[in-house]
Amino acid sequence: MSSAAPGPASYILTVSCPDRVGIVAAVAGVLADSDLFITDSHHFGDPGTRNFFMRTAFEAANPEFNQTAFSKIFSPIAMRFGMRWTLTNCALRPSALIMVSKSDHCLNDLLYRHRTGSLPVHIPAIVSNHMNLAPLAEWHKIPFLHVPVGKDNKPEAEARLRDIIAQTKADFVVLARYMQIFSPELCTELEGKAINIHHSFLPSFKGAQPYSQAHKRGVKLIGATAHFVTPDLDEGPIIEQMVERIDHSYTAGAMAAAGRDVESQVLARAVRWLAEQRVFLNGNKTVVFR
Amino acid sequence: MSSAAPGPASYILTVSCPDRVGIVAAVAGVLADSDLFITDSHHFGDPGTRNFFMRTAFEAANPEFNQTAFSKIFSPIAMRFGMRWTLTNCALRPSALIMVSKSDHCLNDLLYRHRTGSLPVHIPAIVSNHMNLAPLAEWHKIPFLHVPVGKDNKPEAEARLRDIIAQTKADFVVLARYMQIFSPELCTELEGKAINIHHSFLPSFKGAQPYSQAHKRGVKLIGATAHFVTPDLDEGPIIEQMVERIDHSYTAGAMAAAGRDVESQVLARAVRWLAEQRVFLNGNKTVVFR
Amino acid sequence: MSSAAPGPASYILTVSCPDRVGIVAAVAGVLADSDLFITDSHHFGDPGTRNFFMRTAFEAANPEFNQTAFSKIFSPIAMRFGMRWTLTNCALRPSALIMVSKSDHCLNDLLYRHRTGSLPVHIPAIVSNHMNLAPLAEWHKIPFLHVPVGKDNKPEAEARLRDIIAQTKADFVVLARYMQIFSPELCTELEGKAINIHHSFLPSFKGAQPYSQAHKRGVKLIGATAHFVTPDLDEGPIIEQMVERIDHSYTAGAMAAAGRDVESQVLARAVRWLAEQRVFLNGNKTVVFR
Amino acid sequence: MSSAAPGPASYILTVSCPDRVGIVAAVAGVLADSDLFITDSHHFGDPGTRNFFMRTAFEAANPEFNQTAFSKIFSPIAMRFGMRWTLTNCALRPSALIMVSKSDHCLNDLLYRHRTGSLPVHIPAIVSNHMNLAPLAEWHKIPFLHVPVGKDNKPEAEARLRDIIAQTKADFVVLARYMQIFSPELCTELEGKAINIHHSFLPSFKGAQPYSQAHKRGVKLIGATAHFVTPDLDEGPIIEQMVERIDHSYTAGAMAAAGRDVESQVLARAVRWLAEQRVFLNGNKTVVFR
Repeated sequence: MSSAAPGPASYILTVSCPDRVGIVAAVAGVLADSDLFITDSHHFGDPGTRNFFMRTAFEAANPEFNQTAFSKIFSPIAMRFGMRWTLTNCALRPSALIMVSKSDHCLNDLLYRHRTGSLPVHIPAIVSNHMNLAPLAEWHKIPFLHVPVGKDNKPEAEARLRDIIAQTKADFVVLARYMQIFSPELCTELEGKAINIHHSFLPSFKGAQPYSQAHKRGVKLIGATAHFVTPDLDEGPIIEQMVERIDHSYTAGAMAAAGRDVESQVLARAVRWLAEQRVFLNGNKTVVFR
Repeated sequence: MSSAAPGPASYILTVSCPDRVGIVAAVAGVLADSDLFITDSHHFGDPGTRNFFMRTAFEAANPEFNQTAFSKIFSPIAMRFGMRWTLTNCALRPSALIMVSKSDHCLNDLLYRHRTGSLPVHIPAIVSNHMNLAPLAEWHKIPFLHVPVGKDNKPEAEARLRDIIAQTKADFVVLARYMQIFSPELCTELEGKAINIHHSFLPSFKGAQPYSQAHKRGVKLIGATAHFVTPDLDEGPIIEQMVERIDHSYTAGAMAAAGRDVESQVLARAVRWLAEQRVFLNGNKTVVFR
Repeated sequence: MSSAAPGPASYILTVSCPDRVGIVAAVAGVLADSDLFITDSHHFGDPGTRNFFMRTAFEAANPEFNQTAFSKIFSPIAMRFGMRWTLTNCALRPSALIMVSKSDHCLNDLLYRHRTGSLPVHIPAIVSNHMNLAPLAEWHKIPFLHVPVGKDNKPEAEARLRDIIAQTKADFVVLARYMQIFSPELCTELEGKAINIHHSFLPSFKGAQPYSQAHKRGVKLIGATAHFVTPDLDEGPIIEQMVERIDHSYTAGAMAAAGRDVESQVLARAVRWLAEQRVFLNGNKTVVFR
Repeated sequence: MSSAAPGPASYILTVSCPDRVGIVAAVAGVLADSDLFITDSHHFGDPGTRNFFMRTAFEAANPEFNQTAFSKIFSPIAMRFGMRWTLTNCALRPSALIMVSKSDHCLNDLLYRHRTGSLPVHIPAIVSNHMNLAPLAEWHKIPFLHVPVGKDNKPEAEARLRDIIAQTKADFVVLARYMQIFSPELCTELEGKAINIHHSFLPSFKGAQPYSQAHKRGVKLIGATAHFVTPDLDEGPIIEQMVERIDHSYTAGAMAAAGRDVESQVLARAVRWLAEQRVFLNGNKTVVFR
């Protein structure tokens, strides 16, 4: 946290490629040859798709170490195995643009975690189609951008959103109870870069009013699901899910109240995992190294 | 447990009727007037349907107390409020007929709990459309009845089942991973008297192969649901649900293995609650006084 | 929510007394005779202590109904059974004085729930022995009172606190990570009226630095406990507990971070239950009607 | 499962050593050079103790591959890094000697999982200081050895147990509710090779009658803990813990009944993880790669 003699710098390397013998050896070999100290590492080979996923956190003691240097030594390996890879400097927090409508429980939770440092993201702005959460954003000193959406201005609103994403250099978009549906085009553009919290245990109770649906069906647990946004509503790859026990005495409103805690926690986890490079797309599913 | 000077006898009274002022007072008044000591009581008025449900456990110190005597004093109240009611002597365990196919995890669990006394039911017989679980039944000294079901003999098989239910005086039927679907007629006859364990968190993944469906969808929690059998497959009123965390590394087979514990526990709870008169039908939902 | 023709008024009656036949009948009888509609009711007779506890929520349609009127008709019953009882008008929220030190996660959570109406209390003031949380209080428009505590001024600080409690007419005091220990005298004065959140699964890891203790012991779950304050530190009657899974990779700091969510939730539940008259003292234990 | 053209053989390599740069590269390099396909791998460097732990599952397609061959190529690496290491052929199940007293819930659960193949161990014998569980062992066709323990014959009983362990070539000993305390000498001999299930959430409620202690303290969750046996009673390194919610209405007996499921599950997990080489001793704690 302080400065003077800086400790080693922390990095995260992510890799995905077709699975075969020798990947771990090749990656670990490069790191060892460069005197990079592995602090955490996970990998997973999906036996169904034969895809391989790896996340390795390491420390570089040498102050000369940087991304360009690493790229030079790592590229041959990446080429050989057909890898998609990223290297992230942990000191540089990713930018997460947050979008909300009127409900504030997820936003309040994210902002609290952001303010206390437990959510390792930069929040460049909060975008909403309503005005009521402006004071909350203001207290947290985060720009609040009002982008109204009506049945007549959706293309304009989405164009404005694209501008905001570009200007804020957002790494990903978090729909923290944003109640508008993106156009298929925008969903596709944001593939793997936009996540949503749905207030049900998907695939149960897709679409509108999931707590009313849950109340009507008489379930004994309610849940929440954080997932990537895709053109198919509430069908995107699932990142995290949690549930909470209820009973016959819960009205739909009481379910919604009980569900707010779960929604907030599930979304906060998903955002943190994304920020920490723990989430990989694997077809219509995810690999999450917790 | 021992005998000599017997303690007070335990009874459970269940009541359901349209909700209005004075029900609790009337019921509790009858019990107090007869010197019956309430040990546990729950009630619930559904504000949606305006139905009232009540379960009261009490002790009768007077050895003369019996169901006929109670009926005489309680009938006027029941009449006045339009009650459906039951009185159960806790010393007489209800009869639960168990039906299975080839999987034995739920059966094994139920039989273990039955043997050790933690499941307060009498099991008059185990019915299966296969033979492989006969030795397990035999070791527990419970009659095993083989009722094969093929595409040509379903009516005969169900007729045989009706006979077995009648002869064993079964109070309810427990489908402990019984993989045949009852005819709509049989479902209707057994309304409120047959429960099933479905190996998913309903309403997700109805029908066949729920773990394969769950694997394909990439959920992060798997679940199990105990519900009443109705003509609509996997749509019956839900009694209990539980979930278990999984991750991307689980194959459908590993999910099934992890799910077996959850299935067993959920079904065991549902059977115990049914046996203890804790479960009420409330339209297509249940009221469960835990 | 709206006004015009007001609906029935909601009340909660709590009763505790020695257990015997006829209590429920007597209470329910009074309610029925006064045309009061029971919406929820729980009771419990502790077979160990033979104490009886009852919580009954009811609605009074008659606008003339009030506490004085009820007291007149209920007192004879209360006398007969030796009852301690309270009647609470649900429209009048109890006052909860919150005390904090430097950590803000519990306070932030309580204030959020208070602001959104899910925590049915009035918060007359926030008391702290530090200044750092004043801005948070200010944003929520709740008076912030700085009562510094040092080794030399503890009696004066507690005298000041007694004044604050008296002036704010606080119904109970919530120690939301307040890191000072009350004197035995103050603990005794506040018996049943002060609750604390301890950041461990009591009785494990009493006293200071519970997460460090937990880390040293190598537990696989961490927890939090809301309990009444008593002169014996961390030995008071437990109201609620929750746990969260951790693993070998968690440092004491990571445990503390993971624990903050659990602490916040446990304390919020305890405050809500207290405010809703769901918690009864039963010797060194509690009865909680959830 | 079937034979003919056998698939690749599966192995698990475990490694622990002082942490430093290059371990993963060295290990993965050996595996890659020998054309061994990594299917799963975890490692963890404890920043407190600077110890490194690694578990790698791999497949060997070459039928010539065997432990001797591997040892030859791996020894130089092991020497260089000061590694303790093991290589396990997954086709050879480890031997787990089970010890019980009178309670059968954990035993029944382990035997069921063993019989259905979900617990990858060989059970050479069941040892008990009582006779009542002999029929259960017999039905599962597992030798039952009666080793009575009284206050006068403890040394002889432990000598007999040492013989049994030697003769059955047990890899580890599972105390599945065995109610005798081992001598310090035996505990030390069995260090890292004997695990116990304690029916509380340690470190709460050590020693005798934990459910009575829990009832007296009024906790809201009960738990169970699987841990390594050490000379300090209930102080051994913790492998796994789970909890279950209870409330004020639970007697100590009801807590014990509710706890049996949790105990069984926790112990079964610990045994499986041990059998799968997922558990490492790390001072008085464990590293568990789930």
